[in-house]
Amino acid sequence: MVFSSKLVEDAVQEFSRLPGIGKKTALRMVLQLLKMKEGEVDTFTNALSRMRHELVFCDTCHNVSDTTTCTICANPGRDRSQVCVVENIRDVIAIESTKQYSGLYHVLGGILSPLDGIGPEQLNITTLHDRVKDSGVEELIMALSPTIEGDTTVYYIARQFKDLPVRITTIARGIAFGGELEYADEMTLARSIAKRLPIENYVTVHNKAN
Amino acid sequence: MVFSSKLVEDAVQEFSRLPGIGKKTALRMVLQLLKMKEGEVDTFTNALSRMRHELVFCDTCHNVSDTTTCTICANPGRDRSQVCVVENIRDVIAIESTKQYSGLYHVLGGILSPLDGIGPEQLNITTLHDRVKDSGVEELIMALSPTIEGDTTVYYIARQFKDLPVRITTIARGIAFGGELEYADEMTLARSIAKRLPIENYVTVHNKAN
Repeated sequence: MVFSSKLVEDAVQEFSRLPGIGKKTALRMVLQLLKMKEGEVDTFTNALSRMRHELVFCDTCHNVSDTTTCTICANPGRDRSQVCVVENIRDVIAIESTKQYSGLYHVLGGILSPLDGIGPEQLNITTLHDRVKDSGVEELIMALSPTIEGDTTVYYIARQFKDLPVRITTIARGIAFGGELEYADEMTLARSIAKRLPIENYVTVHNKAN
Repeated sequence: MVFSSKLVEDAVQEFSRLPGIGKKTALRMVLQLLKMKEGEVDTFTNALSRMRHELVFCDTCHNVSDTTTCTICANPGRDRSQVCVVENIRDVIAIESTKQYSGLYHVLGGILSPLDGIGPEQLNITTLHDRVKDSGVEELIMALSPTIEGDTTVYYIARQFKDLPVRITTIARGIAFGGELEYADEMTLARSIAKRLPIENYVTVHNKAN
């Protein structure tokens, strides 16, 4: 692309550093910013700038936070006996958005992946161990990706924590709600048959919420 | 989506104001910014902020510009007898990127669209008239969208300018280079047959450039 304005070129250049944004999409965004009032663009850039400079990680669960203890860990209404172990903050947002979980979280910051150079030291496993030992956590709910790396991480943590009085569970794997059997992959389908539930356990989230 | 951080929520909110950006994409962008160094995010926000505050429109052609006369209008190497009339600055960038055009531009800022309340007064037509009258422009190349509104705009300008000694041309319409005949719409195909060219006029852009 050839630009007659260095200002526009720089802005397009910066936007196209974002994931999945090519030059054309970046240009569309820049033109949208040009249509906005100056004050609106200031609000936009200030929100991004403040977030990057002021955001911290929660000392306890490593979730992103505006303060050293995040709003979830600081909430006295949350069940402190349950800790849901997730890979990243996107998973926290996904689970929080279901509004069905009232325990705490622990963000690992990734999953074990030797090929990518991610070993146990790169993940927040030591602090999880300390939490379990010191804070009366009764259950660790492993909510990691259903991949080889995710499963490896689950097994690794289970082995490391086997002397602690904590129950380790994993989120249910199976056919997604609204999913069609014929399009499920073989492994998921096979596992969902092997791990079938008696009908009295067949409660939907809606029933539980009512 | 439920966020545990107001800073992240604000940033996602701002990103999702951009065209074609939903909450999930916005979150992915925000997380990317979080991965960047603070200085890199400053470069990002400064580029956007400077662009919005410092960018002006060229006095002559209404293209976006860093100065009151844009680099294209100021370039002594450009052919001042040709003015390519386009709808918006995206079209200028598209034509400039072909590196095949060496004349000047005139950005109308839209096309006639009575339904959207866009009449001749909303477009930069008066300044185009002045340019043609005062600056020795010999040819206006109309490069507007191949739509009813685009064609209407071409006819309107042609009528308004009929007493001026200027030649008005339109860019060629037809089957796109690399396009397949069977997928062309009927109107394009019909017009490309009606406006067929003798073989000696059949020069590709590549031949012209060599």
